[in-house]
Amino acid sequence: MASRIQAVIFDAYGTLFDVYSVAAAAEQQFPGHGAALAELWRAKQIEYTQLRTLSGPRGERYRPFWDITADALRYAAARLGLVLTPVAEKRLMDEYTCLSVFPENPPVLRALRAMGLRLGVLSNGNPQMLDVGLKSGGIHDLFDHVLSVDAVRKYKTAPEAYQLGPDAFGLPVDAIVFVSSNGWDVAGATWFGYPSFWVNRAGWPVEQLGVTPQGMGRDMRDLQRFVEALTGARA
Amino acid sequence: MASRIQAVIFDAYGTLFDVYSVAAAAEQQFPGHGAALAELWRAKQIEYTQLRTLSGPRGERYRPFWDITADALRYAAARLGLVLTPVAEKRLMDEYTCLSVFPENPPVLRALRAMGLRLGVLSNGNPQMLDVGLKSGGIHDLFDHVLSVDAVRKYKTAPEAYQLGPDAFGLPVDAIVFVSSNGWDVAGATWFGYPSFWVNRAGWPVEQLGVTPQGMGRDMRDLQRFVEALTGARA
Repeated sequence: MASRIQAVIFDAYGTLFDVYSVAAAAEQQFPGHGAALAELWRAKQIEYTQLRTLSGPRGERYRPFWDITADALRYAAARLGLVLTPVAEKRLMDEYTCLSVFPENPPVLRALRAMGLRLGVLSNGNPQMLDVGLKSGGIHDLFDHVLSVDAVRKYKTAPEAYQLGPDAFGLPVDAIVFVSSNGWDVAGATWFGYPSFWVNRAGWPVEQLGVTPQGMGRDMRDLQRFVEALTGARA
Repeated sequence: MASRIQAVIFDAYGTLFDVYSVAAAAEQQFPGHGAALAELWRAKQIEYTQLRTLSGPRGERYRPFWDITADALRYAAARLGLVLTPVAEKRLMDEYTCLSVFPENPPVLRALRAMGLRLGVLSNGNPQMLDVGLKSGGIHDLFDHVLSVDAVRKYKTAPEAYQLGPDAFGLPVDAIVFVSSNGWDVAGATWFGYPSFWVNRAGWPVEQLGVTPQGMGRDMRDLQRFVEALTGARA
């Protein structure tokens, strides 16, 4: 497989962007509850994407990621007994549009490009969210393709969502490394056929789904070493 | 709709069976961690069913619920840093086969039958698990149909799973009340077209999925009142 790798595709939320950076804003709005709110918000956001695709196999339950993110926030606040005023909701949703980029990501992305690899994003986020987020993070010009599942109205881990990568790059799936920090996303991408890399920032166990990522590490620097070993290249 | 209702279908785990009753056994095996283990075990069990169906729209990632339940237990233990010996695993899985039935359920099921309604179970559980569980709970002879998604190799909330109900009863979907304690399951059933009832035992908010169950209550006695009102009957 080594010499075949020609591109690397990244998940966005949790992988390029630190989604838990909203916890600080949540803590400001709801002192003592920021971490719990951010965690439940994120869990519900993912669950709602998966339920809508599972219940609507032709995309008929699809709603854009921005709307689902707001739905998840409203549920999470209600579940925790927090009163979410329109002002607090806007404040927290605004935070979601300009998430922090993990600090090691920009230099690693540049190093991968210097190795001659083409880069892409493949995200549940709708196009406008991704555009604003990548520009706000200053990394938008590092990617050849920014792909949103919005094009197929199915969220990951639906095969149609992962198919966007090979289609955009015009490459076979085994020529593209797929990178995610989400265990479920890595499992889905591996099932689909990508050589996969799990950025396991939290040091969690591998999901028990009968599928193992080809590589894993604690941050994006480990991805760079993995790709170097796979391609025999050095930046 | 009132006079149309001719059957009631129940989810099993969490609705007929108290899945959190395993927390006591978990606490015995891992003092101080029982509640956390039971909760993460359950969350991962549901997540894995949904991911396998989402990633395998033709059932190609399907694994029986018993196996997924074991996978979820192994993950949950590893994530919490607990060493799951084969003995402890067997002890906890055994517990799962003979879950407690919520105490108000048998009299309510009998009352619904006395009203002339046909009853069914529609569960993610594989047939053997369901058979053992319903017999162990002493409620197996109250149901006309015990339906497992194993027949279609797709987990809820896939439409093919919910279609098992109308097919088995030979009734239109709007003649069957669907009952679940799981917010995601109620949403899926409502989307599918069932008149739905949410047994909201924990007092949680309605899921923000743009769909509302026709009825809700705190336990199965509230379901009985809901069905009585819907049909104009009294047991």
